[in-house]
Amino acid sequence: MSSSTSSLSLTNPHLTRLTSTTRLSSLPSTISLRSPTTPSTHLSLSHTHLRRTSVKSSAVVTQTSENSTADLSLVEKSVNTIRFLAIDSVEKANSGHPGLPMGCAPMGHVIYDEVLRYNPKNPKWFNRDRFVLSAGHGCMLQYALLHLAGYDSVKEEDLKAFRQWESKTPGHPENFETPGVEVTTGPLGQGIANAVGLALAEKHLAARFNKPDNEIIDHYTYCILGDGCQMEGIANEACSLAGHWGLGKLIAFYDDNHISIDGDTEIAFTESVEKRFEGLGWHVIWVKNGNTGYDEIRAAIREAKSVKDRPTLIKVTTTIGYGSPNKSNSYSVHGSALGAKEVDATRNNLGWSHEPFHVPADVKKHWSRHIPEGAALESEWNAKFAEYEKKYKEEAAVLKSIISGDLPSGWEKALPTYTPETPADATRILSQQNLNALAKVLPGLLGGSADLASSNMTLLKTFGDFQSDSPGERNVRFGVREHGMGAICNGIALHSPGLIPYCATFFVFTDYMRGAIRLSALSEAGVIYVMTHDSIGLGEDGPTHQPIEHLASFRAMPNILMLRPADGNETAGAYKVAVLNRKRPSILALSRQKLPNLAGTSIEGVEKGGYIVSDNSTGNKPDVILIGTGSELEIAYKAAEDLRKEGKAVRVVSFVSWELFDEQSEAYKESVLPAAVSARVSIEAGSTFGWHKIVGSKGKAIGIDRFGASAPAGRIYKEFGITKEAVIAAAKELI
Amino acid sequence: MSSSTSSLSLTNPHLTRLTSTTRLSSLPSTISLRSPTTPSTHLSLSHTHLRRTSVKSSAVVTQTSENSTADLSLVEKSVNTIRFLAIDSVEKANSGHPGLPMGCAPMGHVIYDEVLRYNPKNPKWFNRDRFVLSAGHGCMLQYALLHLAGYDSVKEEDLKAFRQWESKTPGHPENFETPGVEVTTGPLGQGIANAVGLALAEKHLAARFNKPDNEIIDHYTYCILGDGCQMEGIANEACSLAGHWGLGKLIAFYDDNHISIDGDTEIAFTESVEKRFEGLGWHVIWVKNGNTGYDEIRAAIREAKSVKDRPTLIKVTTTIGYGSPNKSNSYSVHGSALGAKEVDATRNNLGWSHEPFHVPADVKKHWSRHIPEGAALESEWNAKFAEYEKKYKEEAAVLKSIISGDLPSGWEKALPTYTPETPADATRILSQQNLNALAKVLPGLLGGSADLASSNMTLLKTFGDFQSDSPGERNVRFGVREHGMGAICNGIALHSPGLIPYCATFFVFTDYMRGAIRLSALSEAGVIYVMTHDSIGLGEDGPTHQPIEHLASFRAMPNILMLRPADGNETAGAYKVAVLNRKRPSILALSRQKLPNLAGTSIEGVEKGGYIVSDNSTGNKPDVILIGTGSELEIAYKAAEDLRKEGKAVRVVSFVSWELFDEQSEAYKESVLPAAVSARVSIEAGSTFGWHKIVGSKGKAIGIDRFGASAPAGRIYKEFGITKEAVIAAAKELI
Repeated sequence: MSSSTSSLSLTNPHLTRLTSTTRLSSLPSTISLRSPTTPSTHLSLSHTHLRRTSVKSSAVVTQTSENSTADLSLVEKSVNTIRFLAIDSVEKANSGHPGLPMGCAPMGHVIYDEVLRYNPKNPKWFNRDRFVLSAGHGCMLQYALLHLAGYDSVKEEDLKAFRQWESKTPGHPENFETPGVEVTTGPLGQGIANAVGLALAEKHLAARFNKPDNEIIDHYTYCILGDGCQMEGIANEACSLAGHWGLGKLIAFYDDNHISIDGDTEIAFTESVEKRFEGLGWHVIWVKNGNTGYDEIRAAIREAKSVKDRPTLIKVTTTIGYGSPNKSNSYSVHGSALGAKEVDATRNNLGWSHEPFHVPADVKKHWSRHIPEGAALESEWNAKFAEYEKKYKEEAAVLKSIISGDLPSGWEKALPTYTPETPADATRILSQQNLNALAKVLPGLLGGSADLASSNMTLLKTFGDFQSDSPGERNVRFGVREHGMGAICNGIALHSPGLIPYCATFFVFTDYMRGAIRLSALSEAGVIYVMTHDSIGLGEDGPTHQPIEHLASFRAMPNILMLRPADGNETAGAYKVAVLNRKRPSILALSRQKLPNLAGTSIEGVEKGGYIVSDNSTGNKPDVILIGTGSELEIAYKAAEDLRKEGKAVRVVSFVSWELFDEQSEAYKESVLPAAVSARVSIEAGSTFGWHKIVGSKGKAIGIDRFGASAPAGRIYKEFGITKEAVIAAAKELI
Repeated sequence: MSSSTSSLSLTNPHLTRLTSTTRLSSLPSTISLRSPTTPSTHLSLSHTHLRRTSVKSSAVVTQTSENSTADLSLVEKSVNTIRFLAIDSVEKANSGHPGLPMGCAPMGHVIYDEVLRYNPKNPKWFNRDRFVLSAGHGCMLQYALLHLAGYDSVKEEDLKAFRQWESKTPGHPENFETPGVEVTTGPLGQGIANAVGLALAEKHLAARFNKPDNEIIDHYTYCILGDGCQMEGIANEACSLAGHWGLGKLIAFYDDNHISIDGDTEIAFTESVEKRFEGLGWHVIWVKNGNTGYDEIRAAIREAKSVKDRPTLIKVTTTIGYGSPNKSNSYSVHGSALGAKEVDATRNNLGWSHEPFHVPADVKKHWSRHIPEGAALESEWNAKFAEYEKKYKEEAAVLKSIISGDLPSGWEKALPTYTPETPADATRILSQQNLNALAKVLPGLLGGSADLASSNMTLLKTFGDFQSDSPGERNVRFGVREHGMGAICNGIALHSPGLIPYCATFFVFTDYMRGAIRLSALSEAGVIYVMTHDSIGLGEDGPTHQPIEHLASFRAMPNILMLRPADGNETAGAYKVAVLNRKRPSILALSRQKLPNLAGTSIEGVEKGGYIVSDNSTGNKPDVILIGTGSELEIAYKAAEDLRKEGKAVRVVSFVSWELFDEQSEAYKESVLPAAVSARVSIEAGSTFGWHKIVGSKGKAIGIDRFGASAPAGRIYKEFGITKEAVIAAAKELI
């Protein structure tokens, strides 16, 4: 057993979720306050599930029978209510995952009824504890708990509409559909990484804003993850960071049920999760009886809270589909409705005689206290905040802006501007100028790189590193963990509207983090992705490092802004757009190589997505339109100069963001790309896929439809025909 | 210390890399044969790098001074040769990563000079040991070693052309450019996962083909990985499987140099790698002095070979940029040329007075033995194979086909065919019929799913599970580890031309494994990706599980076939194409829902990528062309029937693979999509991105440019307008 638990006492402020003034619980407080240091808590190592793992250094807490039968019976009734709400909803939808809710109902009950601090009538109350169901397929667990707790988002009719069109109870938890759900989960491993981001945000904000006499920010982040999440690499990445950062207020419950879709986890998952997490720097506790061991669960949470320098993993051994006589402990209960016959058998087995969707009166009464208690929690915190505001006016104002998401007025004036006389520079360097300028005016801007800070140019020069002993700083060091990085940033973004996380790697390695980027887009997390080395222009590192299809692949993704600025002003414009779009993530594709500042580029232009940067035509009738993005806008620019010398009327259009251009009025689009002009040439050092929509059937798209090569950048551009000469030749063919 | 090493003896066949008949080594064999069980090998726990980790259960082997100074001096000279070949090549290119080769030269020397079994003049010799440089940026280490070992691919002029256009020495190791390089690495974590695949392939083939009197398949897989690889989630996924599968012939060297690009790993990577790997079921050894501890390295390899039931991680503590007086042990030596001044300083420091690229005569002489020894190894093995063939004719024939990659003649006759009378079925079910039919005729077909076998329908019914105690079986259980799965399959595919790995998950989760899929495409690994639940058609699971942009994102990727079959014949056609394309991976997007077998679909049609499935026009002049893929071809089909009732001449085209259609003759393309017919409507339940190239400026693309929704599939199709009615309306607008 690692750190001693004997320091626990009845006066520990973390042991009770409510202050004495608001305690209305119908359960005696002794249940959740008993000391876990009695002799009965000592280790028992015999267990069929132990397999080849060792628990020598894990704490194992066994159940005691302190609580009275009457109380236990109400808890069991509540737990069965959760089980049957899940069973009935899945049955009605004839679709869904009953197994996890049935097995996790006990820990779910303890978390939402005894531990979690929230206000059901204001799911966005700032200082709430965060809960993440990383095993998102078990969402009926969370919907049942939100329902019992009194959230307006999940009423009985919502449970009955589980998985139906436009319901508040979709097939996996979605923060943008269901107030009370913090993040969007389902793709495995994402939730635990989001939880790391939420806990990071708490630790960061607490360090910046808490005062010795007023700890205005103080909440826990809880998470339930299953075997599937544990197998995913993203979970290991994020949990390694959580251990490194010492996120002591992160408590993760590992639903150890030994069943995944393909059957017993024995067929593919025999590692020692405990040992791995100890290696990752976590405190590990094993609750052997997650099915009925309520006191074990309670004691584990107490112990987890007592360990303040490390996150805690509570491995809770459960039976999937608990209560189903013929389907429990098998994959058949994982992802399908039980079927009428087995529902009946389960009702009999658990002694549940109620109609579907019924919540017994005593259970309802018991849970009803959460509405007044939640309101009290929030008003108490509001009073605390009023105190804080009186004493710390400046800090309170900043904190308010982080809570509200309101940007400080005039923030955009901090964006640097450039002229054609400004020396050429790589857009990754220009990006750093923007980040540093913005960090001064945006208190919620924080982020970093996946071990490429000096290449991605993401360091904020006036701040130090966010580390376990300096959590108030804003440079986050993610290590080489792209997928974890993206998901952690989603957690940060969804913690507070005013937090603006950015993260960085080489553009090609978006391939490693695409699962997280897609969830930024889906869950409306306004993460800023700073993606440098955005083409063959990176040169010698070769095809493994040269993005080709990546621009196209993100242009095809819904609700995301793919921005590829060409110079200083466009980089500033890209940042303006990225900061303003708080419910839509942005990807900035930035060059490794130097690019000149072009006449005609502008922040305003970027905001329109596509715009004219130079033109010698009249009457909206150029002979040819040359369209470029990023580093190739310069090529289009120079080709135009040459063509004009030959008397041609040439328009050059920067197409920095397809999505923003799409949103402009038809009149504006016609003013940039007149339908009558079919002579159009695009140039971009990437796949031509998709460009035919812009250049039309008669136009020509110059690009790269093969993998890159290892050589100095200039040579590759030439060999691949990404040249001024190619643009001129194509234009002449079309005019 | 885990399993005892006292069983090592001089007669252990794994201790020497060469048979006595071919031993020509200039180093006394006692060096590599000394017993590691002397008292001097015991643990020493004091080390500044130990930080908060414990090595209680890791074996730590300390150096002894058994070898004579003369021998040591030649080894050191060889090691410095490797260092300076790397330094000089990077310096000449003014680009590259000298730090790793300088630090890993000692282990590199021991591996390639003393341990690895290979034939430099036939890099593809089947029974060679495999070596993977997972830390691919350190490729100059491998190029220097290949050069010294006598590979034709890396001559002096190739070293001098490091990172230049069309050289054999690109910026990261590329198997398709440089014979002797097994897999393509650089994106971190991929290489160790490839190595797991290579070791899996060896274990699988050995189990199938070895006989008690003839172990015809018997090789090791070695890998060097760095801190970066260790941080990546994919590495944890693959290593968890390697531990689960008990891949005892996989030996990974972890270059523990404490430096990554952002500086000391202390800023982001403080976990205990040893403890994590023990949790993953590996044997772990720590070589404390990787800079000069040759005997430590040798002893560790011996110990690793003695542990046969588990893979071994040898943590080798090294100094990055060893020898550079001012840059070693810092990030500045990681990824840039040293610069002339520091090169001079390093030459002075290491007493290296030679010209750039010079290999001293005694070093050259020492390494020269690898050419005759390699030839002897291969011819000895050939003799062994001749014996094998005599006694086990049938097995030998099968093994030969796996070695050569020749498909058995007439294999394609095994593909099932369907008629419109065949009952409707999901293409994922039809896929399983194909997989099972092919498994009977293709001895190298093996694979599985990331814990979705019963949803992806990937189980081979006549085979059992590949497990540590049944490695000859062909159903691989990957667990929920998509990224590791893809990279492991790359390793399997690149082990032997006749191995055809397939792997499966939901199509949307290609997001988790895109890094591996891209490397399939780049490294010409013909993996078959079986991706089911390919659209909103999966229904209730909702937007987290519904692919939208995925078809477009892979159509934009070079050298990959994106196939979306519409019914039985097209599924068979997709498999035919996938099997035939051994140097190009295929992705099959397959439906969850049932689809009818349509008249006019065919295997031959699929091979052309796009083809006419029904038409009532004459003279290649239809009024309108309706184009569909996969589950939407049926919709186009039905819309055509209705339009024809109104007297229209309507052609229906199945566009199952854009890449294959692109490769057809202009005449063929014109015969399917005549330029004169601009009335074209496409329908696909995915992003319209890219479709304008097919439907043209005047055509209409029906698709989904938003995220999906949670509801029964039919409802979503209707709400999203993916309907026959929408096709008919669009067609009428255009006619």
